[in-house]
Amino acid sequence: MLIGGHAVRGSAAMIHAVDPATGERLEPGFPGATPTDVGQACALAWAAFPAYRETGLEQRAAFLETIADEIVALGDALIERAMRESGLPRPRLEGERGRTCGQLRLFADVVRAGHFLDARIDPAMPDRQPLPRVDLRLRNIAIGPVAVFGASNFPLAFSVAGGDTASALAAGCPVVVKAHNAHPGTSAMIASAVRAAVARSGMPEGVFSMLYGAGNEIGTGLVADAHIKAVGFTGSRSGGLALMKVAAERREPIPVYAEMSSINPVILLPGALAARGEAIGQGFAAALQLGAGQFCTNPGLVLAIEGPDVAAFVKGATEGIEGASPQTMLTPGIHAAYEQGVASFAGHDGVSTVARGAEATGRYQASARLFATDGDRFLRDHALQAEIFGSASLLVRVKDAAALANVLEALEGQLTVSVHMEDSDRETVAQLLPTMEIKAGRLLVNGFGTGVEVSHAMVHGGPYPATSDGRTTSVGTLAIRRFLRPVCYQDMPQPLLPDALRDGNPLHLWRMTDGALSRD
Amino acid sequence: MLIGGHAVRGSAAMIHAVDPATGERLEPGFPGATPTDVGQACALAWAAFPAYRETGLEQRAAFLETIADEIVALGDALIERAMRESGLPRPRLEGERGRTCGQLRLFADVVRAGHFLDARIDPAMPDRQPLPRVDLRLRNIAIGPVAVFGASNFPLAFSVAGGDTASALAAGCPVVVKAHNAHPGTSAMIASAVRAAVARSGMPEGVFSMLYGAGNEIGTGLVADAHIKAVGFTGSRSGGLALMKVAAERREPIPVYAEMSSINPVILLPGALAARGEAIGQGFAAALQLGAGQFCTNPGLVLAIEGPDVAAFVKGATEGIEGASPQTMLTPGIHAAYEQGVASFAGHDGVSTVARGAEATGRYQASARLFATDGDRFLRDHALQAEIFGSASLLVRVKDAAALANVLEALEGQLTVSVHMEDSDRETVAQLLPTMEIKAGRLLVNGFGTGVEVSHAMVHGGPYPATSDGRTTSVGTLAIRRFLRPVCYQDMPQPLLPDALRDGNPLHLWRMTDGALSRD
Repeated sequence: MLIGGHAVRGSAAMIHAVDPATGERLEPGFPGATPTDVGQACALAWAAFPAYRETGLEQRAAFLETIADEIVALGDALIERAMRESGLPRPRLEGERGRTCGQLRLFADVVRAGHFLDARIDPAMPDRQPLPRVDLRLRNIAIGPVAVFGASNFPLAFSVAGGDTASALAAGCPVVVKAHNAHPGTSAMIASAVRAAVARSGMPEGVFSMLYGAGNEIGTGLVADAHIKAVGFTGSRSGGLALMKVAAERREPIPVYAEMSSINPVILLPGALAARGEAIGQGFAAALQLGAGQFCTNPGLVLAIEGPDVAAFVKGATEGIEGASPQTMLTPGIHAAYEQGVASFAGHDGVSTVARGAEATGRYQASARLFATDGDRFLRDHALQAEIFGSASLLVRVKDAAALANVLEALEGQLTVSVHMEDSDRETVAQLLPTMEIKAGRLLVNGFGTGVEVSHAMVHGGPYPATSDGRTTSVGTLAIRRFLRPVCYQDMPQPLLPDALRDGNPLHLWRMTDGALSRD
Repeated sequence: MLIGGHAVRGSAAMIHAVDPATGERLEPGFPGATPTDVGQACALAWAAFPAYRETGLEQRAAFLETIADEIVALGDALIERAMRESGLPRPRLEGERGRTCGQLRLFADVVRAGHFLDARIDPAMPDRQPLPRVDLRLRNIAIGPVAVFGASNFPLAFSVAGGDTASALAAGCPVVVKAHNAHPGTSAMIASAVRAAVARSGMPEGVFSMLYGAGNEIGTGLVADAHIKAVGFTGSRSGGLALMKVAAERREPIPVYAEMSSINPVILLPGALAARGEAIGQGFAAALQLGAGQFCTNPGLVLAIEGPDVAAFVKGATEGIEGASPQTMLTPGIHAAYEQGVASFAGHDGVSTVARGAEATGRYQASARLFATDGDRFLRDHALQAEIFGSASLLVRVKDAAALANVLEALEGQLTVSVHMEDSDRETVAQLLPTMEIKAGRLLVNGFGTGVEVSHAMVHGGPYPATSDGRTTSVGTLAIRRFLRPVCYQDMPQPLLPDALRDGNPLHLWRMTDGALSRD
């Protein structure tokens, strides 16, 4: 574990990763934290907060880049450990390392640009009638230390130094990570890289800590700690709801940014099916099985208007599913949940199995599934909206565009909604779009949600229960806003003002003056 | 009541305003809503939402301005009714009407400028290696129908068509108001003005409704209604906490923006006291008694470093308090709570009464109070942080700057912290500033928080329990952000994109392209 600058050996129950390809228990074990460790890490984070949040933009940006450099410097040992702990293949993990470092470097750019400060100035109007106007200046400041929960399905990009950590550090918030039990060794290596970056960059040690914990106690204690001011989480709905409850019942309630569950509907319209139904089916099968379907944006629901060309989609999808090899899932627990979900759909009244992947040969391998049902049954039975985490999806055949709209309306909040269309479908899409906007954070045309670009215009979020807070995103540069709050300075003398708000704009920021943006 | 376009007479318990100057029950009575009425108003709001949120910027701005025009057109009858229902004097209410209309017009400007859309474009990079980049575009959309609770202390500016309503309508959200029981007649007049504006502007009728309710049932039902997606509230901590609980326990939890309680510390530093202690005391007394102290930003706590010049402050404050006439409070209930709070402080161990205003002559008049205690006692006794809503304040004498910092650290979240300083105090202020930033949404130098400018750089918010969500403000143009959420469009054909995101920038918005702001 890492408590500030110190590598610490925990004294609570030991955590062992399991190699999901073999079922082998991996050494070494990582002993969990005690409540005292949680308190120490949070107190150190609080102690680091005043200095860290006021680091210069350049200094903070360089720190983020140094973390990326240190992660790269871990070399192949990182990839090898992550492969053993996650069962994910090398190219995927190498790509994910690139994404993790790219994310840190992109947030460095965000910090340098300074838009996130939202600097605003309303100059004094001493002669205004009937009352003079005071001088008002606004900037965002960091919200405080953030608790980040590592996610199982991105052992690098959404774990110890992943998106939540990068955006919180960029905002000026110290971070205390609760490592995911599925990849403790990978977490230890990444934590050591962050620790090295903290030291090299001369940051206060409490800027970063990482703890292990076998049960729920450490995570709950972290969210309950008075020094923690926000929470970042990616995982199950039950896990997210539990953290939301702890956060809401604190003496001082705090925001929880939990990215929880989404079945990411894919809408197939007649023009698209006629033009390239089979190809869409093949693309769907590929998206469904990417990473053994263990993505938040996995296409778990397909809505198709009944017609002759649906068969072409089914043909393409079936070929893509039956022709693929079974894949090892991340953990025995995730595998068991997947098997249970698949069994439940397979035995469901009015649900048929359209396609199934090759039988698993390894203990924790999963075989993909495409189920089918009709719109009326789907509407009647809320259980069919349940997320099966993994490469399983449900095709819902509806009789027309109106029925499709009804199904869409009945859905819970989602991360993504995709629509496959040709020009001839445009009117239908225009009619569906308002509902799509209300239901999801990202709307895709002729694509699948599984690729999540890390950029300025990305939204990886959506209405509840996709996330706990549909006003935010956990991927992309806008994610920094989760960890900021505005402060207004009234008639503050120049020497006391933060640089971002001083006359003459010494940081050369875009600022809003009396409502108008400029960089003067 | 107003349910969409229809003036409706409630059928539940009757609400009567009381003239606090005389105790007289005011006619007519206003019967309360039933749960069915709540459901109807919310369903109409939901029905209006798709059309209203996509109104053109100019059309929506003009609607806000029309509401202001219609309020002005109510003429003096509005002021007279508000005077009787609130006990507030004419100039204050005329000023508040100006503020209410100014607020609506400012949000019209905000809508026209379109910064709130946060338009972002990351153009496709089809040739990027190893993977092409898709076309990504982001804008904010309205979050959904908003429940607004009228506040007692601003019967115009923070009530039926006040700041919450104006910012929600500006964001594109229909509004259902629960009128405050203290001013039902004023609320009816304002609602009729909004209704006229809805009709004149050709808006869908469900854009605005207003309900009465004698107990908690109507407010609770409104927050629990599935069609409501956010809540704006200004009032007591217990009221805010109750709504937060209802919102958190919904099947779909929603954000509550509750502005609750704050004692707005005023820090007096030695240089300022030496230079103008008596004048500061006079200014303090005026701020304390403005509007009978019934402001969220009322200075309820004064922190002074012990020294000979504190006496000058006390002298000025005492003169200002003893020389003022007693003022009528807003409601019998508020008056009773004030009397109780004052009695509790007056009888508190280690608390002395420094100054008291002239005896009340009217039934619901309040006489101002300044109490005093020392820093050690204040730190030991959390009850001394309680807000007494009205013109009562507590002077805490501390022995030095370090003790002052300790007291500041021990405070709960606040709307404002003011510091009175001269150049000689600058080093002390620099040391206190980080804590001030952590504790409050607005930091003032040589002023008092009671004037809250409605502008771009204002923050009327702060960490819990000042508000339920310290990431936001309820006054100023940034308030619109409470009612927005981002949506990303991936590879969406031009004709289907919202105007804000189309090529060629037809709305001439400031947009962020690949991270760079421009209006091209």
